[in-house]
Amino acid sequence: MSISRFPVVDLVDLPEDLRARIEPIVERTGFVPNVFVGMGHRPNELRAFMDYHDALMDRDSGLTQAEREMIVVATSAANDCLYCVVAHGAILRIRTKDAEITDRIVANWRTAPVTDRQRAMLEVAVKMARTPEEVSGADLADLRELGFTDADIWDIGSVTALFALSNRIAHLADLQPNPEFFTLGR
Amino acid sequence: MSISRFPVVDLVDLPEDLRARIEPIVERTGFVPNVFVGMGHRPNELRAFMDYHDALMDRDSGLTQAEREMIVVATSAANDCLYCVVAHGAILRIRTKDAEITDRIVANWRTAPVTDRQRAMLEVAVKMARTPEEVSGADLADLRELGFTDADIWDIGSVTALFALSNRIAHLADLQPNPEFFTLGR
Amino acid sequence: MSISRFPVVDLVDLPEDLRARIEPIVERTGFVPNVFVGMGHRPNELRAFMDYHDALMDRDSGLTQAEREMIVVATSAANDCLYCVVAHGAILRIRTKDAEITDRIVANWRTAPVTDRQRAMLEVAVKMARTPEEVSGADLADLRELGFTDADIWDIGSVTALFALSNRIAHLADLQPNPEFFTLGR
Amino acid sequence: MSISRFPVVDLVDLPEDLRARIEPIVERTGFVPNVFVGMGHRPNELRAFMDYHDALMDRDSGLTQAEREMIVVATSAANDCLYCVVAHGAILRIRTKDAEITDRIVANWRTAPVTDRQRAMLEVAVKMARTPEEVSGADLADLRELGFTDADIWDIGSVTALFALSNRIAHLADLQPNPEFFTLGR
Amino acid sequence: MSISRFPVVDLVDLPEDLRARIEPIVERTGFVPNVFVGMGHRPNELRAFMDYHDALMDRDSGLTQAEREMIVVATSAANDCLYCVVAHGAILRIRTKDAEITDRIVANWRTAPVTDRQRAMLEVAVKMARTPEEVSGADLADLRELGFTDADIWDIGSVTALFALSNRIAHLADLQPNPEFFTLGR
Amino acid sequence: MSISRFPVVDLVDLPEDLRARIEPIVERTGFVPNVFVGMGHRPNELRAFMDYHDALMDRDSGLTQAEREMIVVATSAANDCLYCVVAHGAILRIRTKDAEITDRIVANWRTAPVTDRQRAMLEVAVKMARTPEEVSGADLADLRELGFTDADIWDIGSVTALFALSNRIAHLADLQPNPEFFTLGR
Repeated sequence: MSISRFPVVDLVDLPEDLRARIEPIVERTGFVPNVFVGMGHRPNELRAFMDYHDALMDRDSGLTQAEREMIVVATSAANDCLYCVVAHGAILRIRTKDAEITDRIVANWRTAPVTDRQRAMLEVAVKMARTPEEVSGADLADLRELGFTDADIWDIGSVTALFALSNRIAHLADLQPNPEFFTLGR
Repeated sequence: MSISRFPVVDLVDLPEDLRARIEPIVERTGFVPNVFVGMGHRPNELRAFMDYHDALMDRDSGLTQAEREMIVVATSAANDCLYCVVAHGAILRIRTKDAEITDRIVANWRTAPVTDRQRAMLEVAVKMARTPEEVSGADLADLRELGFTDADIWDIGSVTALFALSNRIAHLADLQPNPEFFTLGR
Repeated sequence: MSISRFPVVDLVDLPEDLRARIEPIVERTGFVPNVFVGMGHRPNELRAFMDYHDALMDRDSGLTQAEREMIVVATSAANDCLYCVVAHGAILRIRTKDAEITDRIVANWRTAPVTDRQRAMLEVAVKMARTPEEVSGADLADLRELGFTDADIWDIGSVTALFALSNRIAHLADLQPNPEFFTLGR
Repeated sequence: MSISRFPVVDLVDLPEDLRARIEPIVERTGFVPNVFVGMGHRPNELRAFMDYHDALMDRDSGLTQAEREMIVVATSAANDCLYCVVAHGAILRIRTKDAEITDRIVANWRTAPVTDRQRAMLEVAVKMARTPEEVSGADLADLRELGFTDADIWDIGSVTALFALSNRIAHLADLQPNPEFFTLGR
Repeated sequence: MSISRFPVVDLVDLPEDLRARIEPIVERTGFVPNVFVGMGHRPNELRAFMDYHDALMDRDSGLTQAEREMIVVATSAANDCLYCVVAHGAILRIRTKDAEITDRIVANWRTAPVTDRQRAMLEVAVKMARTPEEVSGADLADLRELGFTDADIWDIGSVTALFALSNRIAHLADLQPNPEFFTLGR
Repeated sequence: MSISRFPVVDLVDLPEDLRARIEPIVERTGFVPNVFVGMGHRPNELRAFMDYHDALMDRDSGLTQAEREMIVVATSAANDCLYCVVAHGAILRIRTKDAEITDRIVANWRTAPVTDRQRAMLEVAVKMARTPEEVSGADLADLRELGFTDADIWDIGSVTALFALSNRIAHLADLQPNPEFFTLGR
């Protein structure tokens, strides 16, 4: 099974700035996540994707990093996206040190033992993922009542939106998760 | 009706580099497209979005710019996204100098008088937009038989993916198109 | 592109009574709307359609004529019906002298700046258009609470029902809107 | 259970021409079908409906009357329309002298022991009833290959379209079938 | 039309215990219901099915036997399952001595003149039949408020579940109802 | 989190015959699978379920036991059934000694590296699980062409049908998988 339906590049053939950003990840995880070599034939797109990702996922947010990964896993599961479910499932296991909650979100996010606040967050995110036209002002008002700020709500919607993009790239390329991701954090 | 459910920034309050990119657009069109002031409260995300957009939409591609805008309009219509339908409908009118074809794609892309090749391109794009998990290797093979290269297919899928993101941001913010967009190019 | 997949008749070949009804429309608009020549090969069906149409659309109703056209455009957009979206979009522009509201209803009726009453009216109409089996007594009670009379509610449902018919005839025939409709009232 | 959510009129209070058309039906069946008294508060609409109905259902067509009733029953079942399923189920039993085939079409039209030609006819009709935007030129070409003329295809689509209207009026009014219809023709 | 796509066995060729259970049914109804001869090539599966069926349908429950048959007919209609609609429609007619209510549930369960309690029961059952992942604790709480005990709710869900199995076996085999079932109890 | 919304029984309180069947499983796995104690308040239904299960899953079939578990996992994932995904995911890991293939089937069965034959088997099974009314003779003919016998096809459909039941019982009860299942076989 090849990594992608499209050209795959070697890390060494990526532009210097991208290599410099990816190498620390490789050192930390011990392997090159396939998303980088699968999108690397389009370095400008990969760079923009990484910039968007880091802007959202690493920012100082009212949502914890684990909560943002919950959104990624729940919406990617709703989109049946293997790469994102497996790779971000691994990240969520690492962030939560809880493999069971991750497996629950993959199978059915409604069964995860999360707070009411997190449940509402996931409900809006999954609706936004699958039928964005049905997300209404009332949904946002519900989130505000549970204490989410406008900045938090922007993060919920934007993480969902970024992985709406990412899931489609992965489906397009039939992008394969690295074998390591399946077991990481278990 | 406010432009967005979230904070709106003035063009002058954007970081210098973003202002420098947006000002020529303002000069050309005569107004500041609301997407910039609506996403401007998150300059890093706006910058990444613009980078991704320009990387895909301005690149030297096997798809014409009009074809890429057709994908944007057809998939945004499938997602009922007002901002993208109206703003990119205007761009498509300008690119094609044909208001009728644009109105047809908005109402029902299947009725647009396009080539068989373009029809196949839109069919895969709209499927990717709404049910990405159903896009299969057979769909890509169909495109290849019509003469699309792998790079072209990547563009079809990626434009769709980028506006899957963009449509969701617009729905999240209830982002309003500038009034000028409704008539531009008519 | 031919006007229809089925035989198209000349206005002069229509029965006298139909010609007498259509000619004033032609004089007013300056062209023969294709629905007449596209359905004209079945004069009895065309006559019944026109009778039903006039009975509902010209009657003295609690709904304004613009509101009835809003229903036509919103439900035809839900059905992706090019002919009705374009032809009745033109009529709605003329009735409202507002091209923007029309374009909004075509793209996504939820984004139109209408009254709460009109929003409720469109919500029930679109549900009736797509999943009539889900319209319940509770939906009608909601309309009554907003001040709609039983006669108004009958009109909402019947306009939707008539264009459920009309949209299907147009899809069957792949009926083409006259080019004039695209710009009328802009 | 009242006959309708809307005003019900007595046969004697209908305009003379409508009464004259309905009375022979009453004599033949022994009761006044509720559709007449349920739509009678809008005589112009009732008259137009009857005209459209007779133009299509009584015309000399390439489809037998039984085949046209099969379309009515199958599409009304797809729309969960009690009145039309029960009333036209009765008519279909009378036309076919076969209660079993009628019950099969009500439960699942695919299980009815019909000809390949009739199966194709019902397939297009049910698609037209539920997702008219998906009916394509290829569907019509399939029907032509099975020997249906253009006039026959118009009839298939138009009968479906007329009952798309009728089903919605019945759902709107929660129109009740006369008790006699349940047993007629069994 | 053959009874099944799979082997059909004679009653006499069934294991003794199954024959002993089926014969009284044959004596009572006058014919061998096709489900027995259609599943008989797998006697262990047939026996387990009959055991499950009798455990649920014959137990002393807070739901009447007619109510349990209502669930069978409504959910089988939602699944377009001819065999179960026709065979259990007959049983429901016998239990209720009311052919009309049965025909109403087949066409559209929402139109059946049942109690509010029964309506709520059917609503949850049909949701469980088609989209079980959407049945939530709130649905069960609604049933409890209407006086259903936990044992009753288990019965509602389990009858639905058993016929989710049975409908699929019938679709798999294209199992034909005995002609007698169509008229039994009318 | 309680194991079930319904009464949970102790293994010792089950009828002797059930205890005798379950105890060897407990000895082999080291814990009592919650399905037994969650269904145990209805011993007759539990017994029938176990009988049906063993008749299908332990029989000498043209499908390997791993293939039958693939069907269980793929269809349970399509139904978002946590209990069955997790418990049978564990069994599939044990049968295949391959955790990755199991995770792939949970996320998206189309991405599993299976044979063409197995892919076709899963395609029909998932269709049967979600929209059984759409499974046609043509689907079965496709399976036969790939070498499946009628007995194999019965097994594919029946395993799907049995877990259509089981998934619904699990959703009804909000049945929780034992924590051990999440890691078993990894």
